[in-house]
Amino acid sequence: MRKLYVVGLGPGDPELITVKGLNRLREAEVVFIPMSSKVDDSIALSIVEKISIASKVIKLSVSMGDKTWVEKVAREVCNALHKFSCIAIAVLGEPSLYSTSAHLLASMKCLDDVYIEIVPGVSAIYACADRVLMPLALGDEAIAIVPSARVEALGDVVGYFNTVVVVKGGKIMAKAAESLAQKGFRIVYAKRCFTEDEVIGRDIIDEDYISLVIARR
Amino acid sequence: MRKLYVVGLGPGDPELITVKGLNRLREAEVVFIPMSSKVDDSIALSIVEKISIASKVIKLSVSMGDKTWVEKVAREVCNALHKFSCIAIAVLGEPSLYSTSAHLLASMKCLDDVYIEIVPGVSAIYACADRVLMPLALGDEAIAIVPSARVEALGDVVGYFNTVVVVKGGKIMAKAAESLAQKGFRIVYAKRCFTEDEVIGRDIIDEDYISLVIARR
Repeated sequence: MRKLYVVGLGPGDPELITVKGLNRLREAEVVFIPMSSKVDDSIALSIVEKISIASKVIKLSVSMGDKTWVEKVAREVCNALHKFSCIAIAVLGEPSLYSTSAHLLASMKCLDDVYIEIVPGVSAIYACADRVLMPLALGDEAIAIVPSARVEALGDVVGYFNTVVVVKGGKIMAKAAESLAQKGFRIVYAKRCFTEDEVIGRDIIDEDYISLVIARR
Repeated sequence: MRKLYVVGLGPGDPELITVKGLNRLREAEVVFIPMSSKVDDSIALSIVEKISIASKVIKLSVSMGDKTWVEKVAREVCNALHKFSCIAIAVLGEPSLYSTSAHLLASMKCLDDVYIEIVPGVSAIYACADRVLMPLALGDEAIAIVPSARVEALGDVVGYFNTVVVVKGGKIMAKAAESLAQKGFRIVYAKRCFTEDEVIGRDIIDEDYISLVIARR
């Protein structure tokens, strides 16, 4: 049976891939890496280049503004599944969280006789919380994970949560953080944790997409 | 400088530890494992026994009903930090999520001159979502992570979220899941994902603490 692995690479540090993820990438004859022109997905490529695998690495061109990318890329991966018995798709962070791989799997029309395994990864959310030695939840506390574009709409909902993690940085990240600070949350801004480009502080200093805010009461 | 590593072991499969976590456990002279009599924390011990490390392994007795455990155990780990230059605390899952290590670090009075690093792990939440090939969030979707004891109090707050993950299984897990199903969520029950004891289905079949419900619209 042909195999398709989707492997979460973790937040950026090549050592933060799991042992299983590393083994699956080594087993795969071809490793596909979705790359977006908009977002700096070269982090995923740099991880794969630093870990020791003999597999062939192929970049997949993802353009979120153009809805036709997914059909095109799905066909490309399906073609590879006809040629090779074991392939992998490697994605930054954790595959279940805002990953292109979910769109890709949903669009692939060649998966009937394919064994699919998604190998979990460390998400940037955990990596950044751990980097600042901050628990996200203790006891019976609850957490919300919210893209910055939707923080304004949170409204009174925040009252229920002890921690709100604002993901998908960008132009509105600072506004989202200010809104939470006004509601009594302490704010930590964290960018590219566990990498050479790591920035951690109280101020939202740029519009990096791979950044987040942890707001905790 | 003496070193203290807190290492997330992942959900149960020994291969789901990160490469960094494995390296840190190998570097440590002593590896402490918090063990609760109430919860079956022997999973953490079984992971450490299966991965190849030469470090001395010491069990820490945690009893959540007795508040004095944390002071006692904190002293025990501090004593080890006086004897050894590098020690580790290994915990199931991800250290920032409902982990005894957060309580322990907060109670240790010997950390002034100690280098502390928390190495992230794969949480059961991600492991179970990946196991059932289910994305937790796409696009601008938001996620809530809520202990089962607090699901009833969620009320209208659920309207904001696309996915609610109910953690900390137990007697009230089934009731919590039913409440979410009535509000239009599809329910997946998952227990000990990526282990030999894995159970995945629609029905909440037992009161295992290491189980969760993923509710998604």
